[in-house]
Amino acid sequence: MAAAAQARAPETDAAIAELARLLGERLSTSQAVRDQHGKDISYHEAMPPDAVAFAESVDEVVAIVKVCARHKVPIVPYGTGTSLEGHIAAVKGGVCVDVSRINRVLKVNAEDLDVVVEPGVTRKQLNEYIRDTGLFFPIDPGADASIGGMASTRASGTNAVRYGTMRENVLALKVVTPDGRLIRTGRRARKSSAGYDLTKLFVGSEGTLGIVVEVTLRLYGIPESVAAATCSFDSLDGAVNTVIQTIQSGVPVARIELLDDIHVDALNRYSKLTLPVKDLLLLEFHGTEAGVKEQAAMVQALAAENGGADFAYAAEPEARSKLWQARHDAAWAAKAMKPGAEIWATDVCVPISRLAECILETKKDIVAEGMLAPIVGHVGDGNFHVSFVLDPNDPEDQRKASAINDRMVARALALDGTCTGEHGVGLGKVQFLYEEHGEAVALMRAVKRALDPDNIMNPGKIFGPLN
Amino acid sequence: MAAAAQARAPETDAAIAELARLLGERLSTSQAVRDQHGKDISYHEAMPPDAVAFAESVDEVVAIVKVCARHKVPIVPYGTGTSLEGHIAAVKGGVCVDVSRINRVLKVNAEDLDVVVEPGVTRKQLNEYIRDTGLFFPIDPGADASIGGMASTRASGTNAVRYGTMRENVLALKVVTPDGRLIRTGRRARKSSAGYDLTKLFVGSEGTLGIVVEVTLRLYGIPESVAAATCSFDSLDGAVNTVIQTIQSGVPVARIELLDDIHVDALNRYSKLTLPVKDLLLLEFHGTEAGVKEQAAMVQALAAENGGADFAYAAEPEARSKLWQARHDAAWAAKAMKPGAEIWATDVCVPISRLAECILETKKDIVAEGMLAPIVGHVGDGNFHVSFVLDPNDPEDQRKASAINDRMVARALALDGTCTGEHGVGLGKVQFLYEEHGEAVALMRAVKRALDPDNIMNPGKIFGPLN
Repeated sequence: MAAAAQARAPETDAAIAELARLLGERLSTSQAVRDQHGKDISYHEAMPPDAVAFAESVDEVVAIVKVCARHKVPIVPYGTGTSLEGHIAAVKGGVCVDVSRINRVLKVNAEDLDVVVEPGVTRKQLNEYIRDTGLFFPIDPGADASIGGMASTRASGTNAVRYGTMRENVLALKVVTPDGRLIRTGRRARKSSAGYDLTKLFVGSEGTLGIVVEVTLRLYGIPESVAAATCSFDSLDGAVNTVIQTIQSGVPVARIELLDDIHVDALNRYSKLTLPVKDLLLLEFHGTEAGVKEQAAMVQALAAENGGADFAYAAEPEARSKLWQARHDAAWAAKAMKPGAEIWATDVCVPISRLAECILETKKDIVAEGMLAPIVGHVGDGNFHVSFVLDPNDPEDQRKASAINDRMVARALALDGTCTGEHGVGLGKVQFLYEEHGEAVALMRAVKRALDPDNIMNPGKIFGPLN
Repeated sequence: MAAAAQARAPETDAAIAELARLLGERLSTSQAVRDQHGKDISYHEAMPPDAVAFAESVDEVVAIVKVCARHKVPIVPYGTGTSLEGHIAAVKGGVCVDVSRINRVLKVNAEDLDVVVEPGVTRKQLNEYIRDTGLFFPIDPGADASIGGMASTRASGTNAVRYGTMRENVLALKVVTPDGRLIRTGRRARKSSAGYDLTKLFVGSEGTLGIVVEVTLRLYGIPESVAAATCSFDSLDGAVNTVIQTIQSGVPVARIELLDDIHVDALNRYSKLTLPVKDLLLLEFHGTEAGVKEQAAMVQALAAENGGADFAYAAEPEARSKLWQARHDAAWAAKAMKPGAEIWATDVCVPISRLAECILETKKDIVAEGMLAPIVGHVGDGNFHVSFVLDPNDPEDQRKASAINDRMVARALALDGTCTGEHGVGLGKVQFLYEEHGEAVALMRAVKRALDPDNIMNPGKIFGPLN
């Protein structure tokens, strides 16, 4: 701690001293705690904050923000640390505000299909809590992320094709602003035309405009019937065209995921499955019993037309769980492909009609460069991830991956797509944000400066060194 | 024109002179044209602009805005003039920019279920244009409004319970900013986490942040089967509880509208119908043939439990059209209830579980005050309108209506609802915006000042005299 303190600016010291008086042992400057809070689960390097404040109430968050604001010390909001673009790296030091202990489910409004939660509630915790109500919260980004963090990165995942993303499912927020005011961005009414949509402005703002301290979410009835299916293809082309035709036909699939042959092979080894080592679609259907069967039959017919074989239907919970657990372990399976490897998960999203083109060109590029890089995706949304399996000691590996990613993003943008479907900009997509939005970034920055003139809220994220 | 010119500020004169050079006869200062552009279809008084600029291209909009920005002259964007809260009233004079002639459908991306349109395209024009594609655009606020205007007021209407509002259905916008830059707020990808959600910031901003000059919208497959139904109730209570239970059961109704007995009576007279003069639910179902029948049967069963009778099912297009045309004529039917009357349509929205309470209390208040004020609503969203039928020469009528409205909004806010479900704030809801959002309005105003520091974009709207 002494070494760290030496490097700190006087205003940071002052803020930390005040916060220590406020929080006691819940203000930590220990190296271990700082290190743990300076790195998410991505390839981005660790940048520990100067201190970590474990807040236990909204009032404490307000008090912490006021102290930091007065001293103009950077604030980095922290939920579970499962972000993927370096969102929690303290690029300018400062205080990490860990809200994971503010984690009560405040109010289940079952009759309105909504719920009010504190930011540290995780998605699994929420679904566990509401299980007896017959309702569920569908957004599933893989990690057991906090709801506050998911709102802040505009997360989505496997169910988004049917249920939307955090953009569609956050009804309202409470936020602590950079100057320590507590505001509420909306009400529980299903729609409103009352002024600017601050809810949607804060969703996806990655902690750069304030700290989310309460989230009102939509819930959905647990479907009467759920079934999973897998289908293998000899060509990526066939798999992707099945997805495109499924979406265009309006089949309301709940999940439609692609894993390329490389990824299936890795998954078989890691999760002890016996899937054919081919390009795979992994599906889930929600509905009435008859409806689910009808949906599955429609997709099976489309798959058959596109060379799909081995259509396997799994209605039993155990079989379904095993498949989806394997899907969620995809990143670990990729990591296990090469000992000591690091994974870099990319994240473009394109209009569905351009998906085949975007994936096939990217795959060609990966093969040409001789890279180990399985592909997985929420393809019903046009969203896919190349997972580069990198040797951290091989700069050439890194260079090649970076070049492939650059070309892939350029390709996605040329196809009217986006540089990030669900991970966010963080530190990793700053350059691409400017390429994607052009002059519109100037408006985003004007909003940032208006709401956070001293640039204390998660500085360096989204816009890079500028605010 | 001479008289008007006398009252104009010198900077307005200078801007008008420049615009006349740019647009020739398409810059009008005639009293008739100004009057026509200064009043929407609401009860708000006419406030004509100093001039009306009929733009015919996006480049012209940019040029017009640059001229006005240089002279700091107010700009009022104009589509079809069908807004309901005085949105187009030129409270500070200035130039009305009429974009109704910029009205091409630019690109139908049928395979991606989206379309790119210019702002002056109306919803009926769009649906006519895409009819052969098997797709449709569901948002239906009643009036044949322009898509630019619908985006700007975050419009919704009868289909929102199934398909969402403009908030959910605008994928991206092109906007001319208050300083004359042309920006694009997003891409056609179905989801993105790339930076602040400027699309949603502009949707519902009522022309106060810029002029919408292009809109990318979601489209939907025309359902295989469509059927309508009506059901009458002896009590409002029964009708509203049927709605609540329908929504809570997850029946995917496409439309579920309430008309109270007073409104049904007016509709029978105006539209030559023979509906029982009771509280009425008017429904529409979209789906497969079997699905539609199943949905109707479920609602019929719920209605029966709540005292609903005369459940009439109409699958034939003519019968359906007649019913929905009557629904859309509801405002005219209300107006016809009293010769020379003016209609004041209110617009609260509450969580569905609180809907019965909110409507019943309001109805009681209307009866107690002895007002003529039928109720109609998009009740599946928790949204309803009291249509006051007012004698424009009776200030007491106006005073009573205003008091009932104040109490209704206070009631809606107390029930976690909003002061406007779909009409917007405009001039009529400014006071309520502050009551609803409190401190959060300060953030909205900070955004407004950041993007429009000279307050030239539709000044006076949303925030009142302050910007």
